[in-house]
Amino acid sequence: MSPFRASARLTEDWRHFDLTVTDGVATVTLNRPDKLNALTFDVYADLRDLLAELPHRGDARVVVITGEGRGFCSGGDVEEIIGELRKMRPAELLEFTRMTGAVVKALRECPLPVIAAVNGVAAGAGSVIALASDFRLLAESATFAFLFTKVGLAGADMGSAYLLPRLVGLGRATELLILGDRLDAKRAEAIGLATEVAPDAELASKAGALAARLASGPALAYSTTKVLLTRELDMDLGSSIELEAMTQALLMKSDDHAEFYAAWSAGRRPEWTGR
Amino acid sequence: MSPFRASARLTEDWRHFDLTVTDGVATVTLNRPDKLNALTFDVYADLRDLLAELPHRGDARVVVITGEGRGFCSGGDVEEIIGELRKMRPAELLEFTRMTGAVVKALRECPLPVIAAVNGVAAGAGSVIALASDFRLLAESATFAFLFTKVGLAGADMGSAYLLPRLVGLGRATELLILGDRLDAKRAEAIGLATEVAPDAELASKAGALAARLASGPALAYSTTKVLLTRELDMDLGSSIELEAMTQALLMKSDDHAEFYAAWSAGRRPEWTGR
Amino acid sequence: MSPFRASARLTEDWRHFDLTVTDGVATVTLNRPDKLNALTFDVYADLRDLLAELPHRGDARVVVITGEGRGFCSGGDVEEIIGELRKMRPAELLEFTRMTGAVVKALRECPLPVIAAVNGVAAGAGSVIALASDFRLLAESATFAFLFTKVGLAGADMGSAYLLPRLVGLGRATELLILGDRLDAKRAEAIGLATEVAPDAELASKAGALAARLASGPALAYSTTKVLLTRELDMDLGSSIELEAMTQALLMKSDDHAEFYAAWSAGRRPEWTGR
Repeated sequence: MSPFRASARLTEDWRHFDLTVTDGVATVTLNRPDKLNALTFDVYADLRDLLAELPHRGDARVVVITGEGRGFCSGGDVEEIIGELRKMRPAELLEFTRMTGAVVKALRECPLPVIAAVNGVAAGAGSVIALASDFRLLAESATFAFLFTKVGLAGADMGSAYLLPRLVGLGRATELLILGDRLDAKRAEAIGLATEVAPDAELASKAGALAARLASGPALAYSTTKVLLTRELDMDLGSSIELEAMTQALLMKSDDHAEFYAAWSAGRRPEWTGR
Repeated sequence: MSPFRASARLTEDWRHFDLTVTDGVATVTLNRPDKLNALTFDVYADLRDLLAELPHRGDARVVVITGEGRGFCSGGDVEEIIGELRKMRPAELLEFTRMTGAVVKALRECPLPVIAAVNGVAAGAGSVIALASDFRLLAESATFAFLFTKVGLAGADMGSAYLLPRLVGLGRATELLILGDRLDAKRAEAIGLATEVAPDAELASKAGALAARLASGPALAYSTTKVLLTRELDMDLGSSIELEAMTQALLMKSDDHAEFYAAWSAGRRPEWTGR
Repeated sequence: MSPFRASARLTEDWRHFDLTVTDGVATVTLNRPDKLNALTFDVYADLRDLLAELPHRGDARVVVITGEGRGFCSGGDVEEIIGELRKMRPAELLEFTRMTGAVVKALRECPLPVIAAVNGVAAGAGSVIALASDFRLLAESATFAFLFTKVGLAGADMGSAYLLPRLVGLGRATELLILGDRLDAKRAEAIGLATEVAPDAELASKAGALAARLASGPALAYSTTKVLLTRELDMDLGSSIELEAMTQALLMKSDDHAEFYAAWSAGRRPEWTGR
């Protein structure tokens, strides 16, 4: 657990998705398979809060997000979300859109690497949750669809118009966000949106192997790499180089770097502690 | 027409290219085919002003830019532009380079989506006009050439050194802008510079179909997506997410979003009004 | 030589790599082939200083960096660097990490185009030196490995977490920097990290041909293109367009642009002077 806990208690029970934490791997499984794991207000709120809590628990070094059944996440439920939003006034709508954005902000600012194991349809908010993850492993049958304009909304949602151009370039992002058409796993890989595509039957084991690798490796090294990647998108060259110099000098005093040198000198494999 | 008109009149006659506005689609056709549609001082000035006016007319929801004949646009005319620039002093040169940059700024800031239907050579300023558009449909025989260094000028022209790395990455942009060599349509597509490549004979109909789709769809959704893509290239993650939250809350009060829900509830297709 | 020299003398002898300057091409050859050209403290310091001096000498218009023997540069020497760092205190470590970052800053801010002729393994700091160059020509057998996390350090080193996402996108950069795995020349080319891949036996002649082209061409045009590409990564659209307008107006008064027009008018090839 983090050495710096205050009065707030950690949440004991997450009711709106399945959560397991095993061997350093926190796995979030969206669990409304009959709805292709469409999101409800509660799921957004739980994702936002979980991502803030996880780094404080001390038992998780990597996060996996996946979906139960055929879909990964089909986005906001038309009835349970869009139907309800129709009744709301501006201040309430803004509470909602800020909450959805907070999920993406939490994904990017979470110091743990996040793997999206995209087992099927990732649509709307579901596609942005995958987009904001660090690794996107796609089943061959998985698809992305940033379909916001198809429901009359802006294709810029939850930070998609910030993130997508920084992954696939402005030209391809413009096409995907304005038109909102579906793209398949192969195309996602070709343009740099998918980290890797796996046969459907192998997705879970691939994701598990990557998560295990990240959980058993030099966690502080992984974590600082992610954090600096996130921050330096918004920094200039000179400041980025200074930040990396400071960070690397700190890491040179870490146990894992010492362990690397000791193991190398002894001709054995390093045993990482993540500190 | 825009509800907020002031004293300035809309221009009735554009003399330096052909302009048609039909069914929400404004089509600009560069019309000096014998010169591969090389630009003159007048064409730049007209493009700058047209792009500022179009959103106020109220009859255009999408812009198509194309060229008559074999070329799209071969850039500044050597005789009519470079020859004249040789005689100018610094203040006049700066008036010119600012005008050319203003065309790109207008393309990026115009709230209407812009389709470049690149029917042939796009060179120099012609390649940057295509680059600053939102969609680039290329004929198979079309080519790009950011050939500025070949005339002894900086490859950074009209914002090319800002835009190109954000579409194809810094490495490829460096090669294309420093060397100024030609690249063909297939290569442009492979690196994310072309949205799509079509057989020469099908380019016009492809561009027409895309324009019709954009003009008949949820125009406010498309427009805000483009505007946020443009702005968020220059914004940080947190501010981008906030801007998207604000924008999306506004769009949730739009007629088109209401229409989506009504149509979905009734099991029919939505009829977009763009409001 | 630069017209603006002060008291400091140019360095007459570079002891930690081979340097030749011929026909405008400065070639740096890392020369510890038995160690795959692993870096020592001295090599970093010499690279930093050479890149600052070169633009003042007046005899170099382009820089080539390559390695002797089988490797390009395998990064910091485990014994001579990591072993020594283990004994240092924070202030000294920071001196070191700032020096390594200064090499990358110098590569990006050097107004001369830099070609990395990657003849073999480019690992750790070696991969970042190639990354910070303007052109990366890779031998077929060359490989990249941003292997920092494998020694327990942050994958963000010497600006890698700033640069790599701007070349290959955030998704691919995350994978390469967090995992630190090797990628081959073909993959590097596919994702925009390599400018070109050549058969091993042809790499030197390819690099020589590109260097000769850059050295004999319009050097001021090339140089300003590079400088603006570097700067505009950190600038917004409007400011970038203004900077390009100012720059281009200046270049329109250059000898090379006048020479282009004179040559074009006379139907002959331009003879560039780089002024």
